[in-house]
Amino acid sequence: MTTMSLSLERIKEAARRIELYAHRTPVLTCSSLDKVVGAQVFFKCENFQKVGAFKFRGACNAVFSLSDQEAAKGVATHSSGNHAQALALAARMRGVPAYIVMPSTAPSVKKAGVLGYGGEVTLCEPTLAAREATLAEVVARTGATVVHPYNDERVIAGQGTAAMELLEEVPDLDVIMAPVGGGGLLSGTAIASTAIRPRIRVIAGEPEGADDAYRSLATGIIQPSLSPKTIADGLLTSLGSITFPIIRERVERIVTVSEAGIVEAMRFIWERMKIVIEPSAAVPAAVLWEGKIDLTGLKIGIILSGGNVDLGNLPWMNDKP
Amino acid sequence: MTTMSLSLERIKEAARRIELYAHRTPVLTCSSLDKVVGAQVFFKCENFQKVGAFKFRGACNAVFSLSDQEAAKGVATHSSGNHAQALALAARMRGVPAYIVMPSTAPSVKKAGVLGYGGEVTLCEPTLAAREATLAEVVARTGATVVHPYNDERVIAGQGTAAMELLEEVPDLDVIMAPVGGGGLLSGTAIASTAIRPRIRVIAGEPEGADDAYRSLATGIIQPSLSPKTIADGLLTSLGSITFPIIRERVERIVTVSEAGIVEAMRFIWERMKIVIEPSAAVPAAVLWEGKIDLTGLKIGIILSGGNVDLGNLPWMNDKP
Repeated sequence: MTTMSLSLERIKEAARRIELYAHRTPVLTCSSLDKVVGAQVFFKCENFQKVGAFKFRGACNAVFSLSDQEAAKGVATHSSGNHAQALALAARMRGVPAYIVMPSTAPSVKKAGVLGYGGEVTLCEPTLAAREATLAEVVARTGATVVHPYNDERVIAGQGTAAMELLEEVPDLDVIMAPVGGGGLLSGTAIASTAIRPRIRVIAGEPEGADDAYRSLATGIIQPSLSPKTIADGLLTSLGSITFPIIRERVERIVTVSEAGIVEAMRFIWERMKIVIEPSAAVPAAVLWEGKIDLTGLKIGIILSGGNVDLGNLPWMNDKP
Repeated sequence: MTTMSLSLERIKEAARRIELYAHRTPVLTCSSLDKVVGAQVFFKCENFQKVGAFKFRGACNAVFSLSDQEAAKGVATHSSGNHAQALALAARMRGVPAYIVMPSTAPSVKKAGVLGYGGEVTLCEPTLAAREATLAEVVARTGATVVHPYNDERVIAGQGTAAMELLEEVPDLDVIMAPVGGGGLLSGTAIASTAIRPRIRVIAGEPEGADDAYRSLATGIIQPSLSPKTIADGLLTSLGSITFPIIRERVERIVTVSEAGIVEAMRFIWERMKIVIEPSAAVPAAVLWEGKIDLTGLKIGIILSGGNVDLGNLPWMNDKP
């Protein structure tokens, strides 16, 4: 399979399409962090993006890629995460309905988030089969267009705009890093950055407790994500048929990190950089912390994927005092 | 008493002096916050400043105002807060010693912070008398120059640079707000903003549990801060002989806020803006939350004073789940 159809041109189109709606997020640096990790790190702060995560870029590009006729029937997805809120907001911005299928077990704050952005929530049993069946019913009833959270070229192109912006600001990066779950952010990042700067090294971080992408690269076959266990709850899904080939082709390496490493990197970034990031966003920084690969002295760009976290339940709240 | 000696020109001098060392911090906005408070709010993010607080501006201006002979003998203060770290870092940047007197009861993380910036810590009994006596001993021994945390014109001029930068970015503010403790930030903010934009209204926020500045304005006499009780631990001190007259002359009003209001505003800013701020920094936002004064529809600048907070002990950790 080739990924020729997903080119830098598609990402540039996405950038023009979402420009009015998405934030151009800032790039932050932190000298004390650089000292600790021994490299020069540039953080692209998607925690400051609309709905608090990069997911808005892809959802927005997908929604505004539709024809007026398609759009009028709305968009649909099953998700209980950031993609659900992102799709609801993008649809509201276009003035069309968003149908979100969520498991009945989803936290009420997640449902409230989608409702707050004007989405219509349909609850179902908390199994993948029930989610897919319920989504199919919704689509049959409404004619809405399904927007998959990551296995969708419009979504991937949208996610790639973050790396493009980062390279516009810091053109001479040696390495660019992103976390990997379903691979939407990672594949968009890989396409954008290797097209703009062919010498760049694309490296992903993944939790040890959800290392299906690591195993997929190692075996050459998409490995399912079976009972993943990690605090990085944005990275539980397995790769998709579109994201996997892009990652195989353009990502140098996926590095797994421990839960302790994720929490340590996350807390350091909160304490020193004074920004709120979610555990998934700390995963690439944890790669630097744990030092499994030597990136000393390099200029490293990291996509900080999001900042949606339950402030009443932080990982260090159960620390010994 | 006149405050003519402390003019905008002094603040511009301070800005030139600290330019190489201090961050020009970003100004952030948040549309969901604007909706909640019914105004257009521009946050000057001093939580991103060196040492995580505006205090670095004043300390840096004071340290770099000294002659080489004065500077060589070092600087000294008694403080267990952000000013101690700010002075230590500014002194290190100039390559001179910083002598910090701290009560023996100060948290070890505060001592470690000062030591980390190369300061020399002298512990004493936790009383004001002991702190002053110990400081006097240190000065007698070293010849260091005392830099008061707020009752010092060089410090006030430095703090005023934050408001100056904010007005450079958003020139048409109707209102500018800052928290008030000893009044260094507030008086610097008031001088800069009323000089640049005479029509601007300067409004301060103060915790109900530490309302000595409010009472000082009401009575026309500096009221001591007796057993203050508030989560906003940067605002416990009373006004000084230099800050009080400036505040009387240029501040429209001091508005007191409840502890619940401070925590609510702080949590909202963490959740929606994805930035870490300390309770003291949330005090002006709490004024908007509580609505004691009507600022509907106005353009409001707020100095977010700092982001140094113990992540293991957040005010909502004891909330019901």
